[in-house]
Amino acid sequence: MKLHGFSRSTASWRVRIALGLKDLTVEQQSYRLRNKDQHTDAYRKLNPQLLVPSLELDDGRVLTQSLAIIEYLDVLYPTPPLLPDDPFEKAQVRAVAQIVACDIHPVQNLKILQRVSALAEDESAATAWAATTIREGLESVEAIIATNKGTFCFGDNPTLADICLIPQIGNAQRFGVELIWPRINEIVEACKQIPAFVNATPENQADAL
Amino acid sequence: MKLHGFSRSTASWRVRIALGLKDLTVEQQSYRLRNKDQHTDAYRKLNPQLLVPSLELDDGRVLTQSLAIIEYLDVLYPTPPLLPDDPFEKAQVRAVAQIVACDIHPVQNLKILQRVSALAEDESAATAWAATTIREGLESVEAIIATNKGTFCFGDNPTLADICLIPQIGNAQRFGVELIWPRINEIVEACKQIPAFVNATPENQADAL
Repeated sequence: MKLHGFSRSTASWRVRIALGLKDLTVEQQSYRLRNKDQHTDAYRKLNPQLLVPSLELDDGRVLTQSLAIIEYLDVLYPTPPLLPDDPFEKAQVRAVAQIVACDIHPVQNLKILQRVSALAEDESAATAWAATTIREGLESVEAIIATNKGTFCFGDNPTLADICLIPQIGNAQRFGVELIWPRINEIVEACKQIPAFVNATPENQADAL
Repeated sequence: MKLHGFSRSTASWRVRIALGLKDLTVEQQSYRLRNKDQHTDAYRKLNPQLLVPSLELDDGRVLTQSLAIIEYLDVLYPTPPLLPDDPFEKAQVRAVAQIVACDIHPVQNLKILQRVSALAEDESAATAWAATTIREGLESVEAIIATNKGTFCFGDNPTLADICLIPQIGNAQRFGVELIWPRINEIVEACKQIPAFVNATPENQADAL
């Protein structure tokens, strides 16, 4: 398999964590998003959205959208599982993942922040915009997981929720969001002990900026 | 079960379609989002994001995030299935659903458009912002499904992809986006023949504006 991504892309980062947890090593191709490396006809054939990540399978078929990719990997390589078996618990894990992947990240990705800067005629507006979005999203994540027991968002093993949360914390720090949520902070510390999370950080990638 | 939602909320609309396809009737409670009906302590306990929809189960447990809710329903009420069995095909359907649910809708929901208006000091900026986001998202959906055979996005039965697409088309029309995509337009017409899609539209809700 080949992962088309970028070190700083939090959606790529999620897939890197999942691959690491599954102990899978894949070829990686990097696209510097600010330089629009991915704006080519060749990449458009892989991913008409011109977003990363895309996962190219060994037979040439391509998957896009990080959550869809991760759930695919979770079926093909079921150990360790990234989602609980119980349908209600599964939905809870997915809901936290979707708070990050739907309601936080797409509102503060590079493309949107460039639009915010242009609209406000002020680059600092984009930082404030991103920080507000991240803060309110993480606040609701904290409220949902606050009373959960266990080392991670849901229980004693990392799930799709942690896989989405940790890269978003990276973005929170980039945009100067103070991490004031005790439960989230515990989980961040716990993930620092897991090689798959450590190896997936932007600074540990070959294309680190 | 009780669905907390709003007629015009496209995320609620998705869940209404799924319930209809499963032939499930649920109690509904409506929150007029522009009036912040959902900004109450009682609702915050159901959904710390203060977003709709939330699905309250008969035992009092609550699910949030429309895609998580729909996949939960699809396991509990498996007929008709809303996702293919094959893991690759499932990931393709989810990817289209996530283009809508991650990359289009959250960037053009009411809360964000209010921020855009404030930033631009111009209400028309919000309409242009929404239209741009919707247009580029639907363009990539069209590119992905253009060569698929069958009546719907993936095959001859509606899936999670169609469930996300149709409400987004409703929003496209609200924001004056011209529907120039032949394959999408065929699917829109096909869905108009399905009672679950017809019954779920905003104008067919008790709280229609």
